[in-house]
Amino acid sequence: MGGDHAPAAIVDGAVAAARDLDVHVTLVGVPPAVEDALTSHDGWHGLPIDIVDAADVIGMTESPVAALRHKPGASIRLAAGLVARGDAAALFSAGHTGATVMAAYTAFGMIPGVGRPALATTIPTRGTPAVLLDAGANVECRPQHLLQFAVMGSVYARVALGIERPRVGLLSIGEEETKGNELTREAHALLKGSSLDFIGNIEGREIYSGAADVIVCDGFTGNVVLKTGEGLVEMIAALASDGLQGALTRLDHAEYGGAPLLGVAGLAIVGHGRSSAKAVRNAIAMAHRFATSDFIPRLEREIGLSSHPATEAKP
Amino acid sequence: MGGDHAPAAIVDGAVAAARDLDVHVTLVGVPPAVEDALTSHDGWHGLPIDIVDAADVIGMTESPVAALRHKPGASIRLAAGLVARGDAAALFSAGHTGATVMAAYTAFGMIPGVGRPALATTIPTRGTPAVLLDAGANVECRPQHLLQFAVMGSVYARVALGIERPRVGLLSIGEEETKGNELTREAHALLKGSSLDFIGNIEGREIYSGAADVIVCDGFTGNVVLKTGEGLVEMIAALASDGLQGALTRLDHAEYGGAPLLGVAGLAIVGHGRSSAKAVRNAIAMAHRFATSDFIPRLEREIGLSSHPATEAKP
Repeated sequence: MGGDHAPAAIVDGAVAAARDLDVHVTLVGVPPAVEDALTSHDGWHGLPIDIVDAADVIGMTESPVAALRHKPGASIRLAAGLVARGDAAALFSAGHTGATVMAAYTAFGMIPGVGRPALATTIPTRGTPAVLLDAGANVECRPQHLLQFAVMGSVYARVALGIERPRVGLLSIGEEETKGNELTREAHALLKGSSLDFIGNIEGREIYSGAADVIVCDGFTGNVVLKTGEGLVEMIAALASDGLQGALTRLDHAEYGGAPLLGVAGLAIVGHGRSSAKAVRNAIAMAHRFATSDFIPRLEREIGLSSHPATEAKP
Repeated sequence: MGGDHAPAAIVDGAVAAARDLDVHVTLVGVPPAVEDALTSHDGWHGLPIDIVDAADVIGMTESPVAALRHKPGASIRLAAGLVARGDAAALFSAGHTGATVMAAYTAFGMIPGVGRPALATTIPTRGTPAVLLDAGANVECRPQHLLQFAVMGSVYARVALGIERPRVGLLSIGEEETKGNELTREAHALLKGSSLDFIGNIEGREIYSGAADVIVCDGFTGNVVLKTGEGLVEMIAALASDGLQGALTRLDHAEYGGAPLLGVAGLAIVGHGRSSAKAVRNAIAMAHRFATSDFIPRLEREIGLSSHPATEAKP
C-alpha cells in the first residue's frame, strides 16, 4: 500500500518478480486495492502470488509509534509479522520509512550487539559501489551509533559486495579530524580507536569517488545527501542530450531497488517512496538473494566477531 | 595565500579581473610568493594591482580563533582590515573558511538584528538560480539562526537575483512538518510564523528543481550537500560523453566564483578551496557588482524592515 505509485507499481513489480525469479510473493494490502491492481495482469492467478488482507494503512504524515499501536491491522505490521513467524523470508515496503523501521524492529528484534538499525544504501562510484548508512532510519544519532553503523556497513560490504577489507569513511565537512560538528568529531575518535579500516573524514565530494567503501553518517544527513544526488541527476537528465542516458542509468536508484535495514534480526528492504515497478522487482530480487545466502545469520556472526571490541571498548 | 592552487590561481584570477573589469586589486600575501606568481604575467606593473605584505598565513588545520589571535600579521586579517578601514571595498579568500568568517566578523562587526553570518551559495536550478544558506559558516545552528538565514537569504535573492518575493524552503527529510530533526522541526514553526513566503520543508531532491528560491539549512548540512553535488557532477563528467559539457558547465562552481558572507557589516566573498583562476576572476566580478550597487546598505535596510517582526516575535 505504500509509495507514491502504490499499489499499481508495487503490484506490477511483484508480478514481474514472480514471473522472472524463483520467488513466491505475498501481497499485503487493503481490499480491493491489491486485487484491482492485479486484474491488469493476465494470468496472474497462475503465478506464485497470494494476498493477505489488511484492515488499515499507515499514512505518510502519521507518527509511526502511535500509528503502529493504534492500527494492529496495518499492512506493514501484518507483513512484518509474516516474516517474524517464518511465513515469509523478507519484508519489502516503499511506504512510510519510519513505520517500516519500527514495524521491523518490533517484529524481528535486534541483532545482539546492535543498538539501532540503519538503512544501508548502495551508492554508485567511479569504482566498485559503496555503502552509505544511515540513509534515514535514525534522524538523531549519537557517536556510538555511527560506530555501530560502520561495523554493520563493513560486514554488509563484505557479505553483499564481496569487499574483503572495506575502507570506512566518516562523512563530514573538512578532512581534518578537528573539522565537523560535535557528532562527527566524537565519532571520529571512536572510529580511530576501532579495529575497522577507518580512512578518516570524507567530504561530500568524495562520496561518488570510490575513496571509501562504507560511508557513515547520521540518518538526516544521509537522507538529504541521497535525495540531493537524485535531484541533481534528474536536473542533468532534463538539461542533457541522449548521449548521457547510459551514464545516468548507473545513477538510477531503481537499479538497486531498495535499502536493506541492517541491525534488525530479520530481512527488511525499504524502497524509495517513488519506487517504480522496476525498482520493486529489483528490491524483491535483492531480498531473494539475501534470503538464499544466509544473509542474517552471517551478519549476526560477523557482528558478533567484529563489533564487540569496537563498540564496547569505548563507552 | 589560501586555496588548493594558491597563490598562482588567485593571482591569475586577480590579473584577469584587473585587465577585464573596472577594478583595482590589492593582493595580500607573504613575500615573495605573490610577486613570484605575478612575474608570469607580462606587463602586470601597468595594471591596477598592488601588494600588501603579510607576515603570516593561517593553515587549513588551524583553529580560526586561536590562529587569528596569535597571528596579527596573518594575510586574512590584514585583508579584512583593509575593508574595515575603507581601503578596499570587498574581501575575497579561497582559504580556511572558518578563518575568513572569523576575520570578517571581527573586522566588520555584524549588521544590526543578525546573530550569525551565513555563507550564501548560488545554486543552478531548472529555472532561475536559487540561494542556499548556510553553506558552511555555522556548523551547529539553533532554530532562530535558521530563521535569520531565511530573512537574509530572502533579502539577498531580492537584491542580487531580482526575485521580488522569494519562496523560502527549509531543507529537511520528508515534506511534512512533523518530519526532520529537532532543529528543522523547531525552525519550521518559526518560519511558519514569520512574514516570509515560507513554502515548507523541501527534500534534497527539490534543491535543483527550482521549487524554492531560498533554501535554508545548518552549515554542516549545507556544506555536505554542496560538495555532494560537486562530486556527483565530477563523476558524471568522467562517465559521460562530450555532449554533456554544456549541461555541466551550468553546474560548475567556478561560474559563480564565490559565496558572499551575509550578515557581516562589510563585503566578504568566500571562494571554494579548489578555486581556479576563472572562479577567482568571477568572485572579484561579484564583489565589484555588490560594491557598486550599495549592496551592504540595501541589505541593512531590508533586514531592518523585515527581520524584526520575524526574528524577535518568537524567542
